[in-house]
Amino acid sequence: MPDPLEPFDPTSSRRRFLQVGAAGAFLCTIGGETVSVAKRGDAAKADAAAAKVARPPSLVGRAAATKPAAGTGAKVEPTEQQTYVTPSPQPGGNRVEYWIQAVETKWTIVPSKRDDWHDVKIPGTSTFTATVYQQMTEGFAAALGPAAIPGPTLHAEVGDVIVVHFRNAFKKLDQAVTMHPHGVKYNPEYDGVYLGQYTRAGGFIEPGEEFTYTWECVPESVGAWPYHDHGPNHTLNTFRGMFGSLVVREKGALVPAVEQSLFLHQLQPPVTGLKRSYQCINGRAYAGNTPIVRARVGQEVALHVFGMDNNFHDFHIHGHRWKDSAGAFVDTPSVGPNETTTVHFVEDNPGRWLYHCHVFSHQDAGMAGWYLVE
Amino acid sequence: MPDPLEPFDPTSSRRRFLQVGAAGAFLCTIGGETVSVAKRGDAAKADAAAAKVARPPSLVGRAAATKPAAGTGAKVEPTEQQTYVTPSPQPGGNRVEYWIQAVETKWTIVPSKRDDWHDVKIPGTSTFTATVYQQMTEGFAAALGPAAIPGPTLHAEVGDVIVVHFRNAFKKLDQAVTMHPHGVKYNPEYDGVYLGQYTRAGGFIEPGEEFTYTWECVPESVGAWPYHDHGPNHTLNTFRGMFGSLVVREKGALVPAVEQSLFLHQLQPPVTGLKRSYQCINGRAYAGNTPIVRARVGQEVALHVFGMDNNFHDFHIHGHRWKDSAGAFVDTPSVGPNETTTVHFVEDNPGRWLYHCHVFSHQDAGMAGWYLVE
Amino acid sequence: MPDPLEPFDPTSSRRRFLQVGAAGAFLCTIGGETVSVAKRGDAAKADAAAAKVARPPSLVGRAAATKPAAGTGAKVEPTEQQTYVTPSPQPGGNRVEYWIQAVETKWTIVPSKRDDWHDVKIPGTSTFTATVYQQMTEGFAAALGPAAIPGPTLHAEVGDVIVVHFRNAFKKLDQAVTMHPHGVKYNPEYDGVYLGQYTRAGGFIEPGEEFTYTWECVPESVGAWPYHDHGPNHTLNTFRGMFGSLVVREKGALVPAVEQSLFLHQLQPPVTGLKRSYQCINGRAYAGNTPIVRARVGQEVALHVFGMDNNFHDFHIHGHRWKDSAGAFVDTPSVGPNETTTVHFVEDNPGRWLYHCHVFSHQDAGMAGWYLVE
Repeated sequence: MPDPLEPFDPTSSRRRFLQVGAAGAFLCTIGGETVSVAKRGDAAKADAAAAKVARPPSLVGRAAATKPAAGTGAKVEPTEQQTYVTPSPQPGGNRVEYWIQAVETKWTIVPSKRDDWHDVKIPGTSTFTATVYQQMTEGFAAALGPAAIPGPTLHAEVGDVIVVHFRNAFKKLDQAVTMHPHGVKYNPEYDGVYLGQYTRAGGFIEPGEEFTYTWECVPESVGAWPYHDHGPNHTLNTFRGMFGSLVVREKGALVPAVEQSLFLHQLQPPVTGLKRSYQCINGRAYAGNTPIVRARVGQEVALHVFGMDNNFHDFHIHGHRWKDSAGAFVDTPSVGPNETTTVHFVEDNPGRWLYHCHVFSHQDAGMAGWYLVE
Repeated sequence: MPDPLEPFDPTSSRRRFLQVGAAGAFLCTIGGETVSVAKRGDAAKADAAAAKVARPPSLVGRAAATKPAAGTGAKVEPTEQQTYVTPSPQPGGNRVEYWIQAVETKWTIVPSKRDDWHDVKIPGTSTFTATVYQQMTEGFAAALGPAAIPGPTLHAEVGDVIVVHFRNAFKKLDQAVTMHPHGVKYNPEYDGVYLGQYTRAGGFIEPGEEFTYTWECVPESVGAWPYHDHGPNHTLNTFRGMFGSLVVREKGALVPAVEQSLFLHQLQPPVTGLKRSYQCINGRAYAGNTPIVRARVGQEVALHVFGMDNNFHDFHIHGHRWKDSAGAFVDTPSVGPNETTTVHFVEDNPGRWLYHCHVFSHQDAGMAGWYLVE
Repeated sequence: MPDPLEPFDPTSSRRRFLQVGAAGAFLCTIGGETVSVAKRGDAAKADAAAAKVARPPSLVGRAAATKPAAGTGAKVEPTEQQTYVTPSPQPGGNRVEYWIQAVETKWTIVPSKRDDWHDVKIPGTSTFTATVYQQMTEGFAAALGPAAIPGPTLHAEVGDVIVVHFRNAFKKLDQAVTMHPHGVKYNPEYDGVYLGQYTRAGGFIEPGEEFTYTWECVPESVGAWPYHDHGPNHTLNTFRGMFGSLVVREKGALVPAVEQSLFLHQLQPPVTGLKRSYQCINGRAYAGNTPIVRARVGQEVALHVFGMDNNFHDFHIHGHRWKDSAGAFVDTPSVGPNETTTVHFVEDNPGRWLYHCHVFSHQDAGMAGWYLVE
């Protein structure tokens, strides 16, 4: 029998790590084109393709939706003829309103240029142009929150409707974007997804346009969920920062004293144009830059952890363990793309604790942070 | 400190995506050889190796199993001397019989040559030679189902035995295959696994041969499970289509109005000989080609989702959320290779909905489909 | 529209499998350096970097911890001024003591040079220098267990404290190591983690030094958990064998008749210096080398399965299915890095059974073994 396995290639280099370990390449199907985003500069190609995506005919008028555009292979289904009404709160429920805009913003992944865990400098520039959700005051009068990764955390209770007045405030990027939520109930108008010629109203919001989404908090919505862009260029936009979270509680439920949403995701060269990949939490890499979570003994702590890239992760906090939804005790639960795992305990263990993804190659490329308990 | 991270390689190309993103390479240990299936054409090498695998001596007669072939390092264990009886149904249970054959078939991954989600053409040929399980009428008299990916869904209740009359009807591929089920109980004769010299009767069915598997539906079998080839060339055969599902219910349990098995898997060049990778659901890629699932408001819906490649996936349906087995509300649960996650709800939300793997690079390479609710 | 997808590269070779499939490359941040471990020989660079890591100032004396070293960017937090007392057992609980040392050892991945599943030779040398935890008698007087992968399994009950007298007995490697446990409760002194200038006593044990860890078994510690190195070079040390498990039971709970810890992990060229990658269970690859688990009908069986590399796995045993922590019946549950899934059933099915990771490319590169039931 011949040796079935050739020698390991001794010429593989650090470069391999950034490419293989980072799994940076991905495809974007954008309107009529499929664009491979695999190297620095490819994001511009995806953006150019997105700028050419035409407003779907279904958005011109309801009648159009019942007849596919000439020359396309689309089949008319009864679903295209269905119309929907905007939902209202349940008796006793509220209309919880937010004003949120999509904006481009300069974003720095390692502002301290340091890894505070290992007390080591992180050289090089880590600033790129992110696309994010920014919370505004009523009527978009002024900024209410930062233009930051992640977007604002939306809060509501069962029986409420979440009403998001959304504006595409992109200045340079000429492309439609949306808000697509998980967990809540919505009809197709408020799905916030581009579906080609089947696109409904909320699925294609062009620069300068506004749209109001109305989402129902049903009993099955209890929990923490992500939202993200689902427009024609959504993979790229999501990867460069267009995501956030929403938390739905039982009516009257108490809010934990410490509550934090933590998104695990990479920022890689094809997306950022930077020279290296970073394994991030909330757009930041390395302890001291990622969120510093603080709690005191006796406080109820809830950390909502989301995957927000192509990878699977698992989340560990030193010194702690908790019950998962099945009632088992865990300290390193897995979480996939757009999945949520919630860490939930009453704090009983003071100290400086490390939290990190337990995929070693993620942890070692920045996916770690501090949890400080007094 | 030197810059620890070299620049990202600007020469990486689209080609990288297909290779790295698709993770196409895998090893097959086939009889006396280990074959690397990493590029187009390698499947033929694996098939050639499989054709040389000799009938295991243990199959010649029971006595042989107690004495390893001369010159091998195998140790005789009491397990090799154990004999087994074919199980019968429990009182009140049934013998549920199927006739299934393994066949090669031409299979087209994108029959419409279109992605109906993005209204975009998918150019190029997507036809290759798949290996599949086909349902036949009693005695293999005629085809009862198509030669298709996936194979037939088998249904039974607790207390039944599932009896599969299996035939290897390969014409060109000269190799043994099997059926290995998950979830049900079986003794080693019906395990359907090639184990070298420890192979039992059901683990090596050569072209032209038949074998009858008998599997028990015990109380712990309730659920949906995959089955797949586990013969000497099983990784390659499974990857090119030899898989299906079986569903075991409690005695007398109602069948959901809408029930569908969805396999998430890639079809990559080393397996298909095609020029590119596809991220598939049930052997098809891109909305309009993948299963169009239909339901009406008020119907009970059960979608059994299986991983069937080397990757981990997570499954999202727009507009819906449901209780997982732990009682938590989810809308994007993870699923690993040969694991099952079942989406289960009563339909309450009409519309055209997208379902997809939420690994962005899978979704964007075809792992998406339509769910239409009136 | 241009063809968006270039042809699959026909020059990709077996070498690709070892690199891509094995995902061998990873980064180590070691003291003031970030070292890429991506090819054979890189481990030596990581070890050289680790040898230069200075004893953290916080370890010199408690006062020092309240004042960061001059010139660093570290912020003094109240957490640095907190002091901790060594915990005692709960009333009725015990002090369960272990003596464990870290040692280098020659380790052979495929001692039989055979895959007993496929009855095939596995050519080439598979011996490398591992770093492992070895159990010793009281006072480190003599070896109590082998220097092996994995380290000893520690057993305790709720209310106990586990006391580990730990010694760094490295001879050639000049670097600090630790023991970091999952699942149990500990204060920061016993976290066993290097945290740069925030390092507490148990986080930096140099060659020749000893340290005694004290860990509490609280009610939420019930289950099986991994422990591993978390010193300055912990990713490399963990990858080359510094891990083991601990099992905490309810007070007075019976020990299953068959109980085994199974670690799923790869050993790849950058770590071992060998020519190929192996997908391992407990440091061994291919059936006949991996643990042979034995049970008899009627016995209670518990297999604790841990991920211990950068990959996600899922664990299948032929002929069996069991209840997961959510009460669902499974036979192939997923497990991520440092996560645990426990297989738990009463044996009722005699035979020679295969167990394996169901990621096909892992199973086919050695991650499989025998489970023999009489």
